[in-house]
Amino acid sequence: MEARTEISSLGEFGLIKKINEGFKTSLPETVCGIGDDAAVIDLDTNYGLLTTDMLLEGVHFDLTFFPLKHLGYKAIAVNISDIAAMNGIPKQVTVSLALSNRFSVEAVDELYAGIHAACRDYNVDLVGGDTSSSRSGLLISVSVFGQVKKDLITYRNTAKANDILCVTGDLGGAYLGLQLLEREKQVFLANPNMQPELEGNDYVIQRQLRPEARMDVVYELAEAGVLPTAMIDLSDGLASDLLHLCAQSQVGAIVYEERLPIDDHTFLAATELNISPITAALNGGEDYELLFTISQDAYELVKNNPKITVIGYVTDNKEEIVLHTKGDNRVPITAQGWS
Amino acid sequence: MEARTEISSLGEFGLIKKINEGFKTSLPETVCGIGDDAAVIDLDTNYGLLTTDMLLEGVHFDLTFFPLKHLGYKAIAVNISDIAAMNGIPKQVTVSLALSNRFSVEAVDELYAGIHAACRDYNVDLVGGDTSSSRSGLLISVSVFGQVKKDLITYRNTAKANDILCVTGDLGGAYLGLQLLEREKQVFLANPNMQPELEGNDYVIQRQLRPEARMDVVYELAEAGVLPTAMIDLSDGLASDLLHLCAQSQVGAIVYEERLPIDDHTFLAATELNISPITAALNGGEDYELLFTISQDAYELVKNNPKITVIGYVTDNKEEIVLHTKGDNRVPITAQGWS
Repeated sequence: MEARTEISSLGEFGLIKKINEGFKTSLPETVCGIGDDAAVIDLDTNYGLLTTDMLLEGVHFDLTFFPLKHLGYKAIAVNISDIAAMNGIPKQVTVSLALSNRFSVEAVDELYAGIHAACRDYNVDLVGGDTSSSRSGLLISVSVFGQVKKDLITYRNTAKANDILCVTGDLGGAYLGLQLLEREKQVFLANPNMQPELEGNDYVIQRQLRPEARMDVVYELAEAGVLPTAMIDLSDGLASDLLHLCAQSQVGAIVYEERLPIDDHTFLAATELNISPITAALNGGEDYELLFTISQDAYELVKNNPKITVIGYVTDNKEEIVLHTKGDNRVPITAQGWS
Repeated sequence: MEARTEISSLGEFGLIKKINEGFKTSLPETVCGIGDDAAVIDLDTNYGLLTTDMLLEGVHFDLTFFPLKHLGYKAIAVNISDIAAMNGIPKQVTVSLALSNRFSVEAVDELYAGIHAACRDYNVDLVGGDTSSSRSGLLISVSVFGQVKKDLITYRNTAKANDILCVTGDLGGAYLGLQLLEREKQVFLANPNMQPELEGNDYVIQRQLRPEARMDVVYELAEAGVLPTAMIDLSDGLASDLLHLCAQSQVGAIVYEERLPIDDHTFLAATELNISPITAALNGGEDYELLFTISQDAYELVKNNPKITVIGYVTDNKEEIVLHTKGDNRVPITAQGWS
């Protein structure tokens, strides 16, 4: 009998690691392959950046509460976020769609209305893709090509001890928005006459349904003359993405609980859902904020930017990636992938 | 009641046309968006080329007869073929996978063995992608980035009257290979003790399961100093792709039935399946050969290349795209998309 190893026994990150181990890049133009937010390609004057992501109905989104227009927007924004994390400027996108016959032309129009809106907002051109039929709902695969000046690129693996750890925006909202939407779906399924109780939770729901890539911060940092020493986008959650950044940079980090930026609406939603707001901020994914490090010299240049919060600093002890709690304890930060 | 228009009422090409009408590119770097085999991006010294394609189980492939290793290879090769059609050199690829829990780690290894083999054969680097779970089988989305010197790019819309129409390799095999595999699947489903009768049909089955992008011809044309006046790859079939090339170039074409390159094995398989070999050559897709036009001056430079066949010529009558039959009749060439 042939061996059969379940993918679940490796988990998502284990599988990706196994796949990547078998393969080395060989072209001189390939500066960086798998392992960062985007691949890096030498184009002589600039670096080219290439990233791709696939969203599947029933896995990554639920159309019972996700409007198609928002979905189209999000599919573009989350890929742009990977380019932002390299300090790059997104330029061109391709979109491949697969649709079951449940979807009408009007539904496709809605989806593209969101795709086009995102292309306008981020000033990127939709340059290709294809459309095919699917036997199980909706699939969207997006690729983005961007560029960055060679001396402005930011990797994940270049954070240094004593650098300051910064995050944009606020955390945990997108996760709580999803929990609320899931809760209302269950209520509706149990009793279709019930109206959804989402009042007062617009903010966190917006964080889930309409995330934005932080290109605004990329531009503001450039204007302020700040070049992050390392950067990653927060798709999996602060904990998981900080662990990636630290592992690749071979550094440790101390994050101060009291510094975690959490919006008041996120606190309220957390209370309503009986979820710790700190857990939501650390382990809730899909905020698509940027986590980056700067040298201490640069602190003066970011401290007055309301979009940026200093949450801790980098250490040379790569065994220690910890949360410094309000009670002055230090607890290890651990990640969650899927398995 | 809201309007609902079925996608089937537009068809594949109608839907793509409708989607594209709503959107113009705006960046000066975007030389060519949707409408050719790949998008074209101005990189100062060269053009960048970007193309993407998604393959879905049950729609584009059937794993009851498609080995995973071959599938991985094909997913790369068909995208490389789009770069070849722009006369470009493929450089980097990304692969996004989604898998249901039916698939084991060993199955993923097989798929990647094919992906890696194709990357080696075409000298491209696998630089990114992701892996996620799927609720319905296997999905593969591939994007390829390539480059081409600005004065060597070949578009679809630049064929001129009196140009010579050329095709690489031979036609119709991949389609007949698929028909044979489908037939044996039905036989097997009806009686699982039957052995498949594929003897003598290795060639056409190979054409279906292991297509190659014609990078060899791209290099040979460059060495011979031949720059095609227009080029497209044959994914949908000669008829459909010739119609694209003619429509975009605003020209007509005459194709000689007796010149269509059809392998002896393709003739035999066509006879066995009771399918006209001419129909297979014209309307059978997935051969991934190149269809291109050259100026008459260049004829001497290609005529002795055994990989290239002259099949006709371009005319200035865009209303007339015809097959000149062996019986000296002229019949309009018509396309088939999905609907």
